[in-house]
Amino acid sequence: MTNTSLSLAGVFPPIPTPFSQEGAIDHAMARRNLALWNRFDLAGYVVLGSTGEAVYLTTDEKADFWEMARSAIPADRLMIAGAGCESTRETIAVTRLAARQGADAALVVTPHYYDAGMTSQALVHHYRAVADAVPIPILLYSVPQFTHVDLGIDAIVALAEHPNIIGLKDSGGSVAKLTEIIRQAPEDFQVLTGSAGVFLAALTLGAVGGVLALANIAPQACIDLYRHVVAGRIQEAVAVQTRMAPVNAATTSRFGIPGLKTAMDMLGYEGGATRSPLLPPSEVDRETLRQVLVAGGLL
Amino acid sequence: MTNTSLSLAGVFPPIPTPFSQEGAIDHAMARRNLALWNRFDLAGYVVLGSTGEAVYLTTDEKADFWEMARSAIPADRLMIAGAGCESTRETIAVTRLAARQGADAALVVTPHYYDAGMTSQALVHHYRAVADAVPIPILLYSVPQFTHVDLGIDAIVALAEHPNIIGLKDSGGSVAKLTEIIRQAPEDFQVLTGSAGVFLAALTLGAVGGVLALANIAPQACIDLYRHVVAGRIQEAVAVQTRMAPVNAATTSRFGIPGLKTAMDMLGYEGGATRSPLLPPSEVDRETLRQVLVAGGLL
Amino acid sequence: MTNTSLSLAGVFPPIPTPFSQEGAIDHAMARRNLALWNRFDLAGYVVLGSTGEAVYLTTDEKADFWEMARSAIPADRLMIAGAGCESTRETIAVTRLAARQGADAALVVTPHYYDAGMTSQALVHHYRAVADAVPIPILLYSVPQFTHVDLGIDAIVALAEHPNIIGLKDSGGSVAKLTEIIRQAPEDFQVLTGSAGVFLAALTLGAVGGVLALANIAPQACIDLYRHVVAGRIQEAVAVQTRMAPVNAATTSRFGIPGLKTAMDMLGYEGGATRSPLLPPSEVDRETLRQVLVAGGLL
Amino acid sequence: MTNTSLSLAGVFPPIPTPFSQEGAIDHAMARRNLALWNRFDLAGYVVLGSTGEAVYLTTDEKADFWEMARSAIPADRLMIAGAGCESTRETIAVTRLAARQGADAALVVTPHYYDAGMTSQALVHHYRAVADAVPIPILLYSVPQFTHVDLGIDAIVALAEHPNIIGLKDSGGSVAKLTEIIRQAPEDFQVLTGSAGVFLAALTLGAVGGVLALANIAPQACIDLYRHVVAGRIQEAVAVQTRMAPVNAATTSRFGIPGLKTAMDMLGYEGGATRSPLLPPSEVDRETLRQVLVAGGLL
Repeated sequence: MTNTSLSLAGVFPPIPTPFSQEGAIDHAMARRNLALWNRFDLAGYVVLGSTGEAVYLTTDEKADFWEMARSAIPADRLMIAGAGCESTRETIAVTRLAARQGADAALVVTPHYYDAGMTSQALVHHYRAVADAVPIPILLYSVPQFTHVDLGIDAIVALAEHPNIIGLKDSGGSVAKLTEIIRQAPEDFQVLTGSAGVFLAALTLGAVGGVLALANIAPQACIDLYRHVVAGRIQEAVAVQTRMAPVNAATTSRFGIPGLKTAMDMLGYEGGATRSPLLPPSEVDRETLRQVLVAGGLL
Repeated sequence: MTNTSLSLAGVFPPIPTPFSQEGAIDHAMARRNLALWNRFDLAGYVVLGSTGEAVYLTTDEKADFWEMARSAIPADRLMIAGAGCESTRETIAVTRLAARQGADAALVVTPHYYDAGMTSQALVHHYRAVADAVPIPILLYSVPQFTHVDLGIDAIVALAEHPNIIGLKDSGGSVAKLTEIIRQAPEDFQVLTGSAGVFLAALTLGAVGGVLALANIAPQACIDLYRHVVAGRIQEAVAVQTRMAPVNAATTSRFGIPGLKTAMDMLGYEGGATRSPLLPPSEVDRETLRQVLVAGGLL
Repeated sequence: MTNTSLSLAGVFPPIPTPFSQEGAIDHAMARRNLALWNRFDLAGYVVLGSTGEAVYLTTDEKADFWEMARSAIPADRLMIAGAGCESTRETIAVTRLAARQGADAALVVTPHYYDAGMTSQALVHHYRAVADAVPIPILLYSVPQFTHVDLGIDAIVALAEHPNIIGLKDSGGSVAKLTEIIRQAPEDFQVLTGSAGVFLAALTLGAVGGVLALANIAPQACIDLYRHVVAGRIQEAVAVQTRMAPVNAATTSRFGIPGLKTAMDMLGYEGGATRSPLLPPSEVDRETLRQVLVAGGLL
Repeated sequence: MTNTSLSLAGVFPPIPTPFSQEGAIDHAMARRNLALWNRFDLAGYVVLGSTGEAVYLTTDEKADFWEMARSAIPADRLMIAGAGCESTRETIAVTRLAARQGADAALVVTPHYYDAGMTSQALVHHYRAVADAVPIPILLYSVPQFTHVDLGIDAIVALAEHPNIIGLKDSGGSVAKLTEIIRQAPEDFQVLTGSAGVFLAALTLGAVGGVLALANIAPQACIDLYRHVVAGRIQEAVAVQTRMAPVNAATTSRFGIPGLKTAMDMLGYEGGATRSPLLPPSEVDRETLRQVLVAGGLL
């Protein structure tokens, strides 16, 4: 259990979970997606993160989905399991389950329902308890657009000292926050951005990679952007970042997971339905989305 | 399945779930609490609502807790089960489970993780699907301080037409909103406030009762307030409302569920521990709480 | 300079400032409005509050408008001047000016541009400095929907001890907050609500009156509501509150000051234009507004 | 009146306005500051922006301060006047005044008091009316941390077509937003960031410069960062950005304008007092600030 054995450098799609119109999980669709993505030089996958509608799955469904995913993901690519729950005890149980199903690491979202009680002290206590109790390394995960909890710099820096906490996915989009975390945390603490809209900036400032919904539909563009920055080709990176900006906005903040899944369907992947209460995009939104994909050179 | 058979008039404590220091549910403690509360003229209980730390329980734990609670709650008092989950399908499954365990009705919180997707349209679709599929009547439940989703007046009024949606618990604290709902909804749609701080105002304006965390520690005061308003004794009601205001603030917004449980311990109930990541109150906070209870005449 | 000499009991319209299409202030229109309002049993007027578009007027324009208003307001009715500015020194200067123009009291909104700096300590310091320096009593004014600063209970209670701070206008709409202020503040500290949607509740709980935009278009309904509550006729009060709820929503939160002025025009008052950048309501919004006024029995 | 004549490339400090302990503006202190800053290769100055406590000054005070500043700023450096007010008409009047006092351009903050009414449509109307009526070019200015209004991408792109609107200062800190504006706006539309914490990222993605509070106390570091990015020395730029991050945070979001002025005093500039209601930093905060300045290599 050491931090140094697991590199998070590169691009990770947080893969969607395909459902039938009746709401059943369709493993075959997911396998076809993974087969397509495996052709690209992705560092691995986040399986059952926010984009994977994890909050809509039962624990048994999670176990089955991770098992399927592990069998479809090459051994040299990471499977990072979205394993955070509201309670510390359930987070530990689900993370252990993910480990048994072959996850290399777990992504642990901040608990958030009682957000007034989720002080830095409470969150540090939670993450330490989880990290102490599970057999795989964990990544902190701050995504205030969903949780309304923004894991603070001080808490992150304190937790970065823990030998089993190897990194952070921050989806808040603040590059100033990333800069300060990278400055203060130990050098082997690995920061990933969860926001494709700041991928270039985050990489420039020292993030090692990204967990990007955009990588589900534009894996090569995300990889290109990553490589350009690593090689110091900033102008080329800016060109990719700028071209992808509207595609990313459309498939995340603007049309949400239903928009991302619809874009996948349009581009030859298997998006499938969302689970209720998420609704499919309207016809008007679908058409806007199609135009954005065309303008971005994907369709 | 008719609306008219179930009256929600009166006071309902949303009961806390007692845990041991190790985090196990303690049914015996809960039974002792219910025995104490049963001495008061309460209309019933909400079991596994927000105050019951429902988000920290597994489905099996919920089933066992409801079974225990039903056996301890007299048949002439309502057991309202907190049954809302993120997905429509899990909400249906859990509500059916609650019905099997003897719940008279279910309290269904708004789904909220993907809050940008929780449009009025999505929420109306969700609640109708749930109401259509379950054997017990449901109450809508809007609690933006936890969910950051405020179920809108238009959605509520539309849903109030459904024969299996008998009422609403609104914890947002806006009496202007309550007024407008009561004006627009069918006469048999029953509105409960979830905010003891506006209980008098809500009752005056036509709410039929309240689901009040305060009723766990001050059941008689809540019942007195209710009776005063029903009998038109406004000045007496104001006196109770005013005296209880700081007690209510301290055991809800100020010190949260840990504060409420600590107050229960101080007052002869069995509060027990919270589950992690909720932390117990500090010694300073405990002392403040004690003083508030003394000033409120409870201790 | 004593608190007891000035009663704030009753209904105060915060009068709009009529502008020509070119944006000039039209004193004649304002005089005609005041003549109409003077026929009702209003306690007085707030002149150049938020509803008066005070932030769009120069100091000279304020001086002239107060002078005009004072000459049109009977001596036995209060003229409360909206005099708060961002800086303490300008607030003092403008309040002194208002006093010279005949204002009986000043309504002093919380400074707010640097809201992170507007701590309780800073606001208490500000209000004390103003209250010490001006020749007329002042009212605290908290209106978070515009300022994003919510003057806290502790600050209000501390300031209520000052001999020249006679009351509070709270427009946040929280009756729980009002209850707590009334409980803690000295008995002669007078609380007004700025939210017609909670007028009944506020009066019941001990507020002495209201500064209500609604009173500009429905003065008699507001007075009726006030009298019903004072006389203990709660059911009659509820009927008025409920009937006026949609009218109030439409002319405040929903369509803003442009909506209120349009409603005034429809009802025989002189609303006039707003100043830019506020835009007039669309035709669709005007029609909705008309229907709301008809449904409310005003048109 | 053409866009192309005025380059906004480079670093602009938004200079603070020094006050005596009694709150009087001290021109001599400001002159001494400008003399010090003039030794650096700054592109110009923003005079009476948010950092200049403009909301605390009367119009006469603004006129005098701009006149003084113009006389102390070399002709080959820009004086950009913070001229935005709540009303369109006052914004025009104050911008004309700034032009008479020698301002090269005006920075026009979004009106915001009636924020629900500040729709894209209203803001576009406002800015066009101002741009049409004033003799100097204007910059749009979005600073949601103060105004709670975030000028939207669509409005900015529409306004960028106006011949007298030459650029934007965006202080919201979203580099994704900047990317999209730069992608959509005409090539000669000049984007400045107002957030030193994202200066590197913004420049990389196509911003031409920054209006940085940090430049008041660390002008050379800001200039170095700018030059490194322009010359493609990204690693050197990252080093400066990282070193300055805590200094910037301390003198903006953490301790506000009082913190910035205190830092100026510590570093040999003339910070002076703030105007009330802003309070000076506590002794503890001063000490923290001093340590941050030492760690940043400034002290």
